[in-house]
Amino acid sequence: MIGGRKDEHIRIASSSDVEVGDSLFDGVQLIHNALPEMDFNDVDSTIELFNKRLSFPFIIGALTGGTETAGRVNAVLAKAAEEFGIGMYVGSQRIALMKPETAWSFRVVKDNAPSALKIANLGAPQVSRLSDRDLVDWVNEAVDMINADAVAIHLNPAQELFQPEGEPWFSGVLSKLKLIRRVVNRPLIIKEVGNGVSMEVARMLNSIPPDAIDVAGHGGTSFIRIEAIRGGDVNEADVFRDWGIPTVLSICEVSSVYDGVIIASGGVRNGLDGAKAIALGADAFTMSRPMLVSALKGYEAVRELINKLMWEFKATMFLTGSRRVEDLKKTPVVANLPILLWLIQRGVKCKLTTNIYNQIKPIASVLMSNLFGE
Amino acid sequence: MIGGRKDEHIRIASSSDVEVGDSLFDGVQLIHNALPEMDFNDVDSTIELFNKRLSFPFIIGALTGGTETAGRVNAVLAKAAEEFGIGMYVGSQRIALMKPETAWSFRVVKDNAPSALKIANLGAPQVSRLSDRDLVDWVNEAVDMINADAVAIHLNPAQELFQPEGEPWFSGVLSKLKLIRRVVNRPLIIKEVGNGVSMEVARMLNSIPPDAIDVAGHGGTSFIRIEAIRGGDVNEADVFRDWGIPTVLSICEVSSVYDGVIIASGGVRNGLDGAKAIALGADAFTMSRPMLVSALKGYEAVRELINKLMWEFKATMFLTGSRRVEDLKKTPVVANLPILLWLIQRGVKCKLTTNIYNQIKPIASVLMSNLFGE
Amino acid sequence: MIGGRKDEHIRIASSSDVEVGDSLFDGVQLIHNALPEMDFNDVDSTIELFNKRLSFPFIIGALTGGTETAGRVNAVLAKAAEEFGIGMYVGSQRIALMKPETAWSFRVVKDNAPSALKIANLGAPQVSRLSDRDLVDWVNEAVDMINADAVAIHLNPAQELFQPEGEPWFSGVLSKLKLIRRVVNRPLIIKEVGNGVSMEVARMLNSIPPDAIDVAGHGGTSFIRIEAIRGGDVNEADVFRDWGIPTVLSICEVSSVYDGVIIASGGVRNGLDGAKAIALGADAFTMSRPMLVSALKGYEAVRELINKLMWEFKATMFLTGSRRVEDLKKTPVVANLPILLWLIQRGVKCKLTTNIYNQIKPIASVLMSNLFGE
Amino acid sequence: MIGGRKDEHIRIASSSDVEVGDSLFDGVQLIHNALPEMDFNDVDSTIELFNKRLSFPFIIGALTGGTETAGRVNAVLAKAAEEFGIGMYVGSQRIALMKPETAWSFRVVKDNAPSALKIANLGAPQVSRLSDRDLVDWVNEAVDMINADAVAIHLNPAQELFQPEGEPWFSGVLSKLKLIRRVVNRPLIIKEVGNGVSMEVARMLNSIPPDAIDVAGHGGTSFIRIEAIRGGDVNEADVFRDWGIPTVLSICEVSSVYDGVIIASGGVRNGLDGAKAIALGADAFTMSRPMLVSALKGYEAVRELINKLMWEFKATMFLTGSRRVEDLKKTPVVANLPILLWLIQRGVKCKLTTNIYNQIKPIASVLMSNLFGE
Ligand SMILES: Cc1cc2nc3c(=O)[nH]c(=O)nc-3n(C[C@H](O)[C@H](O)[C@H](O)COP(=O)(O)O)c2cc1C
Ligand SMILES: Cc1cc2nc3c(=O)[nH]c(=O)nc-3n(C[C@H](O)[C@H](O)[C@H](O)COP(=O)(O)O)c2cc1C
Ligand SMILES: Cc1cc2nc3c(=O)[nH]c(=O)nc-3n(C[C@H](O)[C@H](O)[C@H](O)COP(=O)(O)O)c2cc1C
Ligand SMILES: Cc1cc2nc3c(=O)[nH]c(=O)nc-3n(C[C@H](O)[C@H](O)[C@H](O)COP(=O)(O)O)c2cc1C
Repeated sequence: MIGGRKDEHIRIASSSDVEVGDSLFDGVQLIHNALPEMDFNDVDSTIELFNKRLSFPFIIGALTGGTETAGRVNAVLAKAAEEFGIGMYVGSQRIALMKPETAWSFRVVKDNAPSALKIANLGAPQVSRLSDRDLVDWVNEAVDMINADAVAIHLNPAQELFQPEGEPWFSGVLSKLKLIRRVVNRPLIIKEVGNGVSMEVARMLNSIPPDAIDVAGHGGTSFIRIEAIRGGDVNEADVFRDWGIPTVLSICEVSSVYDGVIIASGGVRNGLDGAKAIALGADAFTMSRPMLVSALKGYEAVRELINKLMWEFKATMFLTGSRRVEDLKKTPVVANLPILLWLIQRGVKCKLTTNIYNQIKPIASVLMSNLFGE
Repeated sequence: MIGGRKDEHIRIASSSDVEVGDSLFDGVQLIHNALPEMDFNDVDSTIELFNKRLSFPFIIGALTGGTETAGRVNAVLAKAAEEFGIGMYVGSQRIALMKPETAWSFRVVKDNAPSALKIANLGAPQVSRLSDRDLVDWVNEAVDMINADAVAIHLNPAQELFQPEGEPWFSGVLSKLKLIRRVVNRPLIIKEVGNGVSMEVARMLNSIPPDAIDVAGHGGTSFIRIEAIRGGDVNEADVFRDWGIPTVLSICEVSSVYDGVIIASGGVRNGLDGAKAIALGADAFTMSRPMLVSALKGYEAVRELINKLMWEFKATMFLTGSRRVEDLKKTPVVANLPILLWLIQRGVKCKLTTNIYNQIKPIASVLMSNLFGE
Repeated sequence: MIGGRKDEHIRIASSSDVEVGDSLFDGVQLIHNALPEMDFNDVDSTIELFNKRLSFPFIIGALTGGTETAGRVNAVLAKAAEEFGIGMYVGSQRIALMKPETAWSFRVVKDNAPSALKIANLGAPQVSRLSDRDLVDWVNEAVDMINADAVAIHLNPAQELFQPEGEPWFSGVLSKLKLIRRVVNRPLIIKEVGNGVSMEVARMLNSIPPDAIDVAGHGGTSFIRIEAIRGGDVNEADVFRDWGIPTVLSICEVSSVYDGVIIASGGVRNGLDGAKAIALGADAFTMSRPMLVSALKGYEAVRELINKLMWEFKATMFLTGSRRVEDLKKTPVVANLPILLWLIQRGVKCKLTTNIYNQIKPIASVLMSNLFGE
Repeated sequence: MIGGRKDEHIRIASSSDVEVGDSLFDGVQLIHNALPEMDFNDVDSTIELFNKRLSFPFIIGALTGGTETAGRVNAVLAKAAEEFGIGMYVGSQRIALMKPETAWSFRVVKDNAPSALKIANLGAPQVSRLSDRDLVDWVNEAVDMINADAVAIHLNPAQELFQPEGEPWFSGVLSKLKLIRRVVNRPLIIKEVGNGVSMEVARMLNSIPPDAIDVAGHGGTSFIRIEAIRGGDVNEADVFRDWGIPTVLSICEVSSVYDGVIIASGGVRNGLDGAKAIALGADAFTMSRPMLVSALKGYEAVRELINKLMWEFKATMFLTGSRRVEDLKKTPVVANLPILLWLIQRGVKCKLTTNIYNQIKPIASVLMSNLFGE
């Protein structure tokens, strides 16, 4: 029962301890600017994304759809997206394509958020088993269902593997993604669901290429754990509890090889984390589980959460002396050793490693003076 | 009510848990000298600063003024400054300029410490909104109020942002600082209030340039937390609990680009910390919260605290074989990894990174012999 | 009483806290592949080893023999080896050579696992005291006893030293090993028992050379502790609790100088650890204590454990996009600082340090542009 | 009352928590040798030192003298030194020189240990205040009192500073040490008492030069703490709790600039620590506080302790495949990051940093191929 599964996901994700690992945002530091030479009111946090203007670079993460509760959650979140001028993913729409009587639970999104940025959503394993023709139909239907501005396809091999009724089918996915890119008339986003995108995968995706990659890294909601709780065996999940690329590292890996839009997610938990993501190279950020928890409490809780997020994001802009989001991208960042060691071993060329390689210049000059005299 | 705020600051700072983060002094080690070739009595800890001689390089930090309690605190501290031959900042004098009936609470400083080094104090956001003429008047009045030997302007964007009635206005500050430098007849000190000064900010300040920078780094009293307690919401402060440049790092950052006097503050908690600050490149150090706590207990408590500080400072001089403060500046220092990683990533050229770059010479010689034969 | 000792080993190893230190597998990370471009069913985990095909690269570790209980354990494990198509070591066969009436407890292995890979086992100190002729007889008898496909000789200086009735005799071992290599008609495996093989030892072994080295590194079952518990004095073991080369490091050390088959053991505790071992350069892995604990519970417990191991191993292959074990060997790995520091100081050239040395190329190019202009 | 002080030292050192910091021996690893190619019986742990042969390179540390209890302790320890064929320091003999009626408490050492290596002991601050003639008399008297084979002068500026009745007088010490070296007919040892000897101090001592330096590093018994407990104020000691050079680092610092005998002490707590010290460059090691604690329990406790120490030392020789102490000196060592970072920043050229610099050769070759083509 796919509907039953959706409700179980909501129940488990909202009540159990399903956050695992460390997204590593605490290992990244922005540099305090004691002399911002601007007023807090001068902060302009808006960006443009997929032809929509956002009040700040935030998108409500992909969560759900297909059941009574899911429909309620979607409606509440969509209303907030509209009010705040932010973006919103929906959860996987397969259920609505297979059981059209559940499509209303997605349609509430376009009803409540007519002008907001909306993103349709389907899963790679399912996509990989469709004929080309059916695939195109599915995607177009999913887009129409919510009047989507973009389409996201999620890669979730770990989830499918740990899911009792999972479909760990990933052969042929790449060519199906290429097809979608060619025939579907919307920007294409490839996303993970909490285990992160590596630079090797980003390089493979470059052969499509998608308009955006949402890294959905490790350190926030863990689907390995959610599915293990559903299956009744948490031990297995414990062996793989550290499996995945922490979000900070995934941002760096992807940014080192991919030129399109980067969306940061997976354990982003406040506006400071979001600002760090952008300083590291992302263009926008999303939060999923905390949005779900708030949505189940009601509209006011969602408003409070988004207000807090936005204030924290703008506060960080002010305290780094960033007038616009573009300035935040250039603000200096410093990372701790575990982050740097990973990046160095992986050969990732990103803002953080450039920091270090630049510092080698003094070494070079010591060498030169040794080689050729003072 | 600005007076009410002052008293709240005193109450919260003296009783609640408002010290946050780590100034990183424990990550710095001085090297024990088993053969100092001097007697403890040979230690000479005096310095000269802003034309005053100090018995050791210590200044009582900027704290308060404007209320009954504040006046009492200022009187006690001033008396101790006079007795010990050390320096003293006063708190922000805006309140006395706006409500002249409170000026007595600052004037007690010059009454009780006629010969000690005294430093006037105003805040950047307020300064930035004054006309040039009013600004000059304000500063001169502040100086006269305590017969100040120097003027400090504090930069506090984080405090203003988190303060319920804050004024996060920092546009135009730099040009106002230049004006003060030009027309006011006293040495100019630019200070933070607990989030630290970066090398980028120090470089901007070089266009003034001030006579001294007081780094007021992160790791001691946190104004983000004080204001959050006042506002009744500590959660917000938790997101930003690590915001700021730890004091040790701020000393290194500033010393790498700025040639004037450097004052170390923010979580300095004993004479050993003070000696480490000086070994890292500072010229003097200050303590604020612990002075306040002692002053509220009475004069004897203040005397005990300063006696202890001075003994610890001299003990460190002896155990490093430093006859004079100048020698302490040259004593070797070693830092731990988090400190070094920050400095290397930031490209800071200071005593600590020079340590490391010097060690690269053996590498160079290995390279040379590989390149050109043994 | 050698039989009494065997039963004591079983009792202590299965009930007391005899796992000591850290094998360091948690310090190694494989990289999640979000786009494996294969189905889980495509995973082929089989390998060929010593002319036998294994369903996955797993061998039940060397444990016991010589007593009633030991015979029962051996029978259960052999049955599982046969069912799953995996390998199996037996424990040291000296007892059966000295007291032939106990040989049945080893023979059950060939009876229950006629087609599985079986490995005979003798200890170096005993071997070193035999005449050449007796040695050859002993080894051939041991092989025949279980119809072995290969012969393992274990090096256990720490165990012999801490064993109350131990025989810390290692002079002349190498020449005896060469003799075995020459005259015995089976592949030769040299193994430790939990303190690891260094690259210096692997280099010495190269003069034989053996067909395989089983690193049996530090971090799993500790014989120093088992023997200390038997001797009644655990304190002495505490001084040497960190003695030994952690398994991950031993794999890297041996792989840097030795070209034959590498078997990983010592604190391998799940299929993910096993997969990491193979990604680091091993060809197969073993587990001892957990197999013993399960065997004492009965056949079903052993089956469950092996099923779990195999699933975890295949899951890791899938999540790294490895179709065959050969692909897993090439999958990227990242290690933490303690691992890297050891390897760098030891001058080990392995997959992990190559990672780092490769990253030096950007440094070289910075140097070049400094030396010869942009 | 100097006698009262001696008894207080014994009481506090044997009962209170006076071990502070970390000698860093746990951060050093020797490499397990699985194939030692020797029997345990082949281990020869003897050395020759100051013309005496020791059964293993151990000296009972400088402890006490001058009181009833001290005399008893000295007698017990001397008896053990004689039985085991090890060395023994006595405590500072000043008390006996000033109050000849207490000299018996030192003389018991020569009575009980006629053939053992015995070391006389005086403090630098006292020495520095004597006329040249008195100094020579004192030293000769001290030597005669115990028929000493060598003379130790201890440098203890931190102890004198924290001692309520301390004499922090170190001007002129060096020239007095030179005098002793010239006129006294015994090998001269310069030792600290628990805060370590830096390479700068070792370089200064080279102008004498002494026959041995006993590093007496930080991480074992802390005299700052003992004196603070005596003075009734432990807080002050807390500020300086990390003051001093950890023993491992002090061995490396001294060995990098000094060619004579190096004695390791300060927090050495078992034979494995002792063996590590020797692998790092020391020639012998000592233990003080644990010897005192055992001596107060009686002769059997001392014998047990020394037996244990010797077994551990020989066990380590066996497990590293070292037949003689000379071999142990060449055994490989690996250190953790805090140790390496200190040594690199300090520019210490020792066995540990050579490890690392040697590993740079592959870097050089990468550079070369980049510079001059593959
Ligand atoms: C209850 C729940 C349902 C989810 N369903 C989907 C989904 O249908 N499609 C998808 O792409 N991601 C889905 N996700 C994954 C999230 O979009 C996100 O990648 C992941 O939760 C990590 O972000 P977080 O740490 O902010 O929760 C779901 C997450 C949760 C908690
Ligand atoms: C109660 C209180 C009031 C303060 N008021 C001022 C002020 O008016 N002006 C100023 O420049 N700094 C002010 N400060 C900041 C201190 O001068 C100092 O920078 C900061 O407290 C960090 O030092 P500490 O960790 O030693 O307390 C105040 C601090 C405290 C605790
Ligand atoms: C009870 C017991 C008996 C063992 N007996 C032997 C043995 O006879 N021969 C041998 O080579 N190794 C023997 N070992 C060592 C194991 O083969 C293995 O190297 C060690 O236990 C580390 O692996 P583990 O951490 O998976 O237990 C024995 C281990 C245990 C626990
Ligand atoms: C009770 C006591 C008395 C000591 N007296 C002396 C002394 O008189 N002369 C001396 O050179 N060192 C003296 N020491 C210092 C020791 O020789 C040694 O350097 C120090 O205790 C560190 O070693 P440990 O950690 O093994 O105790 C004394 C130590 C103790 C515990």
